Amino acid sequence: MNISPKVPIPTLERLATYLRYLIDLEASRVETISSTDVEKQTGINAAQFRKDLSYFGEFGKPGVGYNVVELQTRIARILKIDQMQPIIVIGAGNLGSALIGYPGLRDHKFHIAAAFDSDPAKIGRSQGGLILRDEAHLRQANAEIGARIAILCVPASAAQAVAAEAISAGVRVILNFAPLILKVPERVVVRNVSFLQELAVLSYHLSGDTQK
Amino acid sequence: MNISPKVPIPTLERLATYLRYLIDLEASRVETISSTDVEKQTGINAAQFRKDLSYFGEFGKPGVGYNVVELQTRIARILKIDQMQPIIVIGAGNLGSALIGYPGLRDHKFHIAAAFDSDPAKIGRSQGGLILRDEAHLRQANAEIGARIAILCVPASAAQAVAAEAISAGVRVILNFAPLILKVPERVVVRNVSFLQELAVLSYHLSGDTQK
Repeated sequence: MNISPKVPIPTLERLATYLRYLIDLEASRVETISSTDVEKQTGINAAQFRKDLSYFGEFGKPGVGYNVVELQTRIARILKIDQMQPIIVIGAGNLGSALIGYPGLRDHKFHIAAAFDSDPAKIGRSQGGLILRDEAHLRQANAEIGARIAILCVPASAAQAVAAEAISAGVRVILNFAPLILKVPERVVVRNVSFLQELAVLSYHLSGDTQK
Repeated sequence: MNISPKVPIPTLERLATYLRYLIDLEASRVETISSTDVEKQTGINAAQFRKDLSYFGEFGKPGVGYNVVELQTRIARILKIDQMQPIIVIGAGNLGSALIGYPGLRDHKFHIAAAFDSDPAKIGRSQGGLILRDEAHLRQANAEIGARIAILCVPASAAQAVAAEAISAGVRVILNFAPLILKVPERVVVRNVSFLQELAVLSYHLSGDTQK
């Protein structure tokens, strides 16, 4: 996992939160915001917000604040989501289906270009406006699509082989929902979403109830 | 969000990763491991592993390593997942359905005790062995169930009201999938899973391709 050392990952995560908030503000025709507004609405403190932006140059005007559209455009450019990005989803069970239909993807310039499954009963079916394709044809399909982002929603037992196939098809970053650690070449970046991990961290926070 | 300052959240997240790995090892009848084994299998480096454990006392024996069952038991106890925990899922769309059927929950002592939806067409239907219940009856249902963990899979527009209802029903920690920042009392802990945020962070890492 070749994660850039320059900008901390939590900063990138917060940038995505600011962007979500800015998109909503623009829809409500708000023109300018202060870092205090950001704190009130996102729960991320104002000093942290200013520090996060400081990695990328000058933003906002003292006494005036931040122009919503301008800030949104600049953050989108930083995150490389200023142009529509094709994504492929591999595995069209409940989770894959949820992602295919996930609201807000287009606002973030993500476009699910194709979805794949290995189940013959599913291949050829329509799902969220897409025809599910055969996982076996991933490589030739992506030669046309050119997606560099893949979302992996296959069972853990299949995930390593499917990831390797996706990488050989040109995928450079993977959002992995399978509960295992993928082995990938240095140049490939993986982010893991583990529901069990999320629940375990939350469970720890229940301790205050039982042990105080 | 009242997150304990003593143990860093990333440490808790890694503990959950070690636990997943240890459960798999026990299933394969491995008895002892070294911190180097952990690094090879999880990608988390050996020194980090030892440091994470050091928050919680002495683990392992020099020259011998870590006993798999013992380490698993102690980490489960730290994360408070040594006893079966009831969880409620609110919102039984594709995402909620994926979570109801998510593999490995029982290994981590999580038990989806009930699932709720507000759609009359879904209420009363069977889903993953559960009968979907009416969201309007959340409070009285949880008086019996006693779940303190809720997974929120409702649309953003409904999430704040549903979270408030869950909290008044006794929920203390929330895993939130709705793309908004929930306002909750201090004593309640929320973890947000945002697919858009995950994709945005990954997208940033594509920059190496385009701007080198």
